[in-house]
Amino acid sequence: MKVVEVDLDDRTYPIYIARGLLDQGELLRKHIPGKTALIITNETIAPLYLDRCLHSITASGDIKAEVVILPDGEQHKTLEVLQKVWDKALECRLDRNTTFIALGGGVVGDMTGFAAAAYQRGVHFIQVPTTVMSQVDSSVGGKTGVNHPLGKNMIGAFYQPRCVLIDTDTLNTLPDRELASGISEIIKYGLIRDAALFEWLELNMERLLQRNPEAFTYAIERSCINKAEVVAADEKEGGLRATLNLGHTFGHAIETCTGYGAWLHGEAVAAGTMMAADMSLRLGWIDAELARRIHALNEKAKLPVTPPPGMTARQFQDTMAVDKKVQDGKLRLILLRGPLGNCVITGDFPKQALDETLQAFCQT
Amino acid sequence: MKVVEVDLDDRTYPIYIARGLLDQGELLRKHIPGKTALIITNETIAPLYLDRCLHSITASGDIKAEVVILPDGEQHKTLEVLQKVWDKALECRLDRNTTFIALGGGVVGDMTGFAAAAYQRGVHFIQVPTTVMSQVDSSVGGKTGVNHPLGKNMIGAFYQPRCVLIDTDTLNTLPDRELASGISEIIKYGLIRDAALFEWLELNMERLLQRNPEAFTYAIERSCINKAEVVAADEKEGGLRATLNLGHTFGHAIETCTGYGAWLHGEAVAAGTMMAADMSLRLGWIDAELARRIHALNEKAKLPVTPPPGMTARQFQDTMAVDKKVQDGKLRLILLRGPLGNCVITGDFPKQALDETLQAFCQT
Repeated sequence: MKVVEVDLDDRTYPIYIARGLLDQGELLRKHIPGKTALIITNETIAPLYLDRCLHSITASGDIKAEVVILPDGEQHKTLEVLQKVWDKALECRLDRNTTFIALGGGVVGDMTGFAAAAYQRGVHFIQVPTTVMSQVDSSVGGKTGVNHPLGKNMIGAFYQPRCVLIDTDTLNTLPDRELASGISEIIKYGLIRDAALFEWLELNMERLLQRNPEAFTYAIERSCINKAEVVAADEKEGGLRATLNLGHTFGHAIETCTGYGAWLHGEAVAAGTMMAADMSLRLGWIDAELARRIHALNEKAKLPVTPPPGMTARQFQDTMAVDKKVQDGKLRLILLRGPLGNCVITGDFPKQALDETLQAFCQT
Repeated sequence: MKVVEVDLDDRTYPIYIARGLLDQGELLRKHIPGKTALIITNETIAPLYLDRCLHSITASGDIKAEVVILPDGEQHKTLEVLQKVWDKALECRLDRNTTFIALGGGVVGDMTGFAAAAYQRGVHFIQVPTTVMSQVDSSVGGKTGVNHPLGKNMIGAFYQPRCVLIDTDTLNTLPDRELASGISEIIKYGLIRDAALFEWLELNMERLLQRNPEAFTYAIERSCINKAEVVAADEKEGGLRATLNLGHTFGHAIETCTGYGAWLHGEAVAAGTMMAADMSLRLGWIDAELARRIHALNEKAKLPVTPPPGMTARQFQDTMAVDKKVQDGKLRLILLRGPLGNCVITGDFPKQALDETLQAFCQT
């Protein structure tokens, strides 16, 4: 079993990575301090893994577990759906010492985290991510929340789990599209801070797409180490942490404008990363060879390299204007700068470069 | 001007107390770091104080202010109403460096605080309380949230303001019932930790009811000092802070069962304090003379000393079972113990004492 620590003083927590962890009840129970738990999962994951998760939690007889099953998909990542979690928790009289357990992908994890952060002003919380996206990115670091019709993840909290339990076997049931979506975040770590990981991906993408367990364990561990380092250095996103949003400002605009759930998060991030790379190239901050390699790796991963055909430059501009990185009216972007593995967060670029990129990627 | 500091390391903040502070724009603007602000107030307060607050914020020309006016009353302290705040903030494209300003009583303050805590995972926040209740208690210490049909303040966050600005002149427009309601929390500080304040109240209740400014400044400052000490020692309510909830477990049950808004919070707390005192007396933890003085002081303040006639012991039991102080199924109460100014938080009492108190105060 691999263990990666997220170092946050008194809220430090471990990420466990191995095959078959879902059945290691003792490990899970070690992180449940009270006598009750609430598993939050979705309609897709429940038939696959809920029984095993429930059994692991309740096997010792000390812990009583309740369950909420949410509808599946980014379009259901709303306050209305979140209320069902709180309704259930109160109906079951779960107290402040209870533990909410997220069993599922990024949507389940983000919603469970915020549900836990706000229920009685904060209860315990464990992540059991079952998708590549959530295993390499969203389950680690404590960003939680729901979407608003006007912007993604606009309502939420920074709230850290007590542990993250990654059973890599759960990837066996993941649809191909979801698999590729998660890989876009692994590519991201390579681009912003880990050139060796990017080069490894160039050589091993086929093995990932074939779900080779060793390849996945390596990619997940390496991603979690990158994420843990960034989060430990800048938990509340004062600066460095924002670099994890490479491609996300463009990507969130795609998700918001196409309607949440039409494109998967990682698909939107992949197209967004292409746009950020294009802009970096126009600014002369990266060379054409790096831009070409990014394009090639995304194609190899079967990820989109352009936004959806109907999207306009104006739609990008309007949605990006409410991005969380906007500061006193100024849009800030994560752009690549220098050799592979380097990036900057900056609001200091000629507006023309952004306009040109939007024109190049949008037909209207 | 009196200044009380709430000592919370890097989140330490001042409470300013004086007449006419609403017009001291510079003081307010000093605590607004960005270029935008969102004032959240209600239908009752807006016609009285909104223009002055707006003027103070925008007078220098550096800060743009938006406004949301909520319906007035505890029955509107819901997630549905809170969403209007987030809708407005996003429509106005307010970014992460914006400041939410609560102008009003406890409901406005609690809702604004939670709105600020969750908007883009946390924006700045200032309290401008305009009721005794909010000036002596709810605006200080960072407890924020909304009610759920099954329990009061069940959804929320610990989230500290950047400052609390108390203009004692705003009490001149406060209805008598609201005035008395706030006084119940001042009495509370006397009972749990400040015998001298309780004795001062016994001598000065008439002056408070006549809205004597000097008497109010003294009572507010003294209350804020008590609250600040408790919060600094135990921000997240690991133990000591729970003592601020004397009478609140019974009180919340009254509020939940009568329908939010029928009884004012402080009215419910007053009746709840009488019940806690009765139980303490039955347990032999306080003497009859102290119980008599509490009763007399509540009556002097024109506060209720019994719950509403229709409430049953069963209603109390059911609602108290989901109290936030319940731990692994065990109800904990704040009870008085020892001479005036001393209390305990405990789940360790004979159930019979609680039953007897409920029977004594409920007709059915």
